[in-house]
Amino acid sequence: MPHRRYPRLLLAVGLLLLVLIVPGCAKETKEVANIPPLAEDEIDSEAFSKHYPRHYDSFKRNFEQEKTEYGGSVPYSKLEADPSLKKLFAGMPFSIDHNEDRGHVYALQGVTTTKRITPKTPATCFTCKSSQVPRLMKKYGDDYYKKPFNEVKAEVKHSIGCSDCHDPKTMELRITRPALTEAMARRGVDITNATRQDMRSYVCAQCHVEYYFEPGTGRLTFPWDKGFTPEAVYEYYKEKKFKDWEHANSKTPALKTQHPEFELFQGSTHQLAKVSCADCHMPYVKEGTAKISSHWWTSPLKTMNESCGSCHRNDQEYLKARVKDTQDKTRDLMNRAQQALVDAIDAIEAAGKAGADAKILDEARELHRQSQWHWDWVAAENSMGFHNPQQSMSSLGKAIDLAHQARAKALGK
Amino acid sequence: MPHRRYPRLLLAVGLLLLVLIVPGCAKETKEVANIPPLAEDEIDSEAFSKHYPRHYDSFKRNFEQEKTEYGGSVPYSKLEADPSLKKLFAGMPFSIDHNEDRGHVYALQGVTTTKRITPKTPATCFTCKSSQVPRLMKKYGDDYYKKPFNEVKAEVKHSIGCSDCHDPKTMELRITRPALTEAMARRGVDITNATRQDMRSYVCAQCHVEYYFEPGTGRLTFPWDKGFTPEAVYEYYKEKKFKDWEHANSKTPALKTQHPEFELFQGSTHQLAKVSCADCHMPYVKEGTAKISSHWWTSPLKTMNESCGSCHRNDQEYLKARVKDTQDKTRDLMNRAQQALVDAIDAIEAAGKAGADAKILDEARELHRQSQWHWDWVAAENSMGFHNPQQSMSSLGKAIDLAHQARAKALGK
Repeated sequence: MPHRRYPRLLLAVGLLLLVLIVPGCAKETKEVANIPPLAEDEIDSEAFSKHYPRHYDSFKRNFEQEKTEYGGSVPYSKLEADPSLKKLFAGMPFSIDHNEDRGHVYALQGVTTTKRITPKTPATCFTCKSSQVPRLMKKYGDDYYKKPFNEVKAEVKHSIGCSDCHDPKTMELRITRPALTEAMARRGVDITNATRQDMRSYVCAQCHVEYYFEPGTGRLTFPWDKGFTPEAVYEYYKEKKFKDWEHANSKTPALKTQHPEFELFQGSTHQLAKVSCADCHMPYVKEGTAKISSHWWTSPLKTMNESCGSCHRNDQEYLKARVKDTQDKTRDLMNRAQQALVDAIDAIEAAGKAGADAKILDEARELHRQSQWHWDWVAAENSMGFHNPQQSMSSLGKAIDLAHQARAKALGK
Repeated sequence: MPHRRYPRLLLAVGLLLLVLIVPGCAKETKEVANIPPLAEDEIDSEAFSKHYPRHYDSFKRNFEQEKTEYGGSVPYSKLEADPSLKKLFAGMPFSIDHNEDRGHVYALQGVTTTKRITPKTPATCFTCKSSQVPRLMKKYGDDYYKKPFNEVKAEVKHSIGCSDCHDPKTMELRITRPALTEAMARRGVDITNATRQDMRSYVCAQCHVEYYFEPGTGRLTFPWDKGFTPEAVYEYYKEKKFKDWEHANSKTPALKTQHPEFELFQGSTHQLAKVSCADCHMPYVKEGTAKISSHWWTSPLKTMNESCGSCHRNDQEYLKARVKDTQDKTRDLMNRAQQALVDAIDAIEAAGKAGADAKILDEARELHRQSQWHWDWVAAENSMGFHNPQQSMSSLGKAIDLAHQARAKALGK
């Protein structure tokens, strides 16, 4: 029984290993010593950086600009790369300036330099671009949604940062934008009771969603009362008789989808497996001997070992090929939908100019509106179908069918 | 040290457990005693039943007729359930008689009673309907593919059974139909060296595939030389200038897809995870104290515990909902494709009758041919998209787009 001979020695070695290993695996969750604690209303990410230097190092990687096959953070002009978009968005700001988005740290710079901002743009457009927004909302109350963007601009200095998702005192995840809490409450869900795992998606869902400005109040609102599918949200807008703009060529009362990442994700394999946004986009990484949740918000294609590897034991090339297959097939149907939409718009415009029957034109425009909505639900979303492959293909298939129907209607055929 | 006190008792209990458990888990692979061994060319499944009674009990369940939401084995008329199919197949036998297929045990009864058989039908149509076919092929040589179906009919008594996939002497899996071996050889794959896991799909791929009768020889041939995707097989047929029939209304040189289950499965999540046909359709089941591979070839929706449960630990309702979501979205795009195809056929027919330009008509027919091919790749396949959801949605999205293009071309618009 040799293992019974040296019990004290074994115990000592065990304790030593424990002492060595446990701090090495500890998360960087406590404040660094000898630095004054963060103010409870701190919004400057630089201040957080003193307390959480490792997290901040990963956060700084958001300044990097790198392309993936279907996304990335290099701000090329989507309008130049894909001229059909100019036609699809004719008459609204996205036809003037529409670039690939960069990281969160560029959000404020992006919104203050885009040509989409006009003298009529409300301050609401800062909502997802600056950590100062909760203060502005408190300061101006409901007037926040009515103040001109350009009037508030001088006050806004900080892009998106730590305080948007973290309580500076406890570092607990928190919701700082009311639209999410309100929309979920209307769905009967009290997210103040959310689990931590749910919060790892909800903090992202403050911004990565479809939204609109409520007519009259201008209040930023998420149109989820009937559900998260493109059909349910379309019905919501239809009931409200809402349009984002009138299409310059077809005169369609059109809708512009805004990056519905959270909505598209609902009902997907990953969402149903209870994977959160952070599980893939903020994977746990080792920094030296510490383990932290990466704050480099980027495509998981750049962090596949950490993002995919914690569940999928396949090799990276296999997984990458699976993602590419999904994305390639999504892009193919998206291209077909865009071409069909361009043709529909041309036909409706021509029919309008030729003095076609008003009822026929309205029916054609309704088909165009629906088609473009279903196309944009996938096109404006930032995963090229990956967040929910089956829903994406379903939406694009519908978009193709409806666009052709719109054209045929306008042609009177 | 109490565990060292009764070593002999523990050993005895262990041996007893071993004696009790091992036979209980043993597969039914050996012949039953006191029955003469099977002849090496045995084809009568009744003869096999004496040796493998448990397997045969599961095999007998193939006589059951039960519907699932999108399939099953109740032989309702697809033409009555979905009248657009009559238009899509106008001018070829599937527009006359097209019923949901029943189990393998009904294969011979099905082929000898369908109205699709004409005096010109070759004996080749028995190939996947009777265990006697290898004998017929041996007896007639290459003439097998030219003999009239009705001439050979009297010789054929047995439906599909044990010997089609099993060597009666060893019960090893085997390939008995040459088209599969030949097609794989042309792709550079020698399937005589296949692994057992590959054989658990290959035996099914003898029949659950797209095929055609080679013009001239009439030889049953699988069109896989360029690949397994619908695009690759379409290119194969295009190069051969092959058509199955001329569409009665549109005069399109059309193709009829035949249940490409094996092909559609290629590249799917399950196939890439090395799942075989048998893993889901012939799950291991317990019969009393024995474990056998079920020979009730049916929808895994009826055997989810055994079929899905060995990999997926989710509850059945969850898994069923996932399958339904895939199938519902597939059926929606399939319906849209069918309507678009009907409209395209009508437009091409009308343009033909109105004396439209021959070049325009040919272009419209080519678009119709492609569209119907991509639609039928999913429609003729027996999983309502489940075998490869992304590929199915991709094919149907293309079918929708191409059908509308065909119509527009015929309209000269």
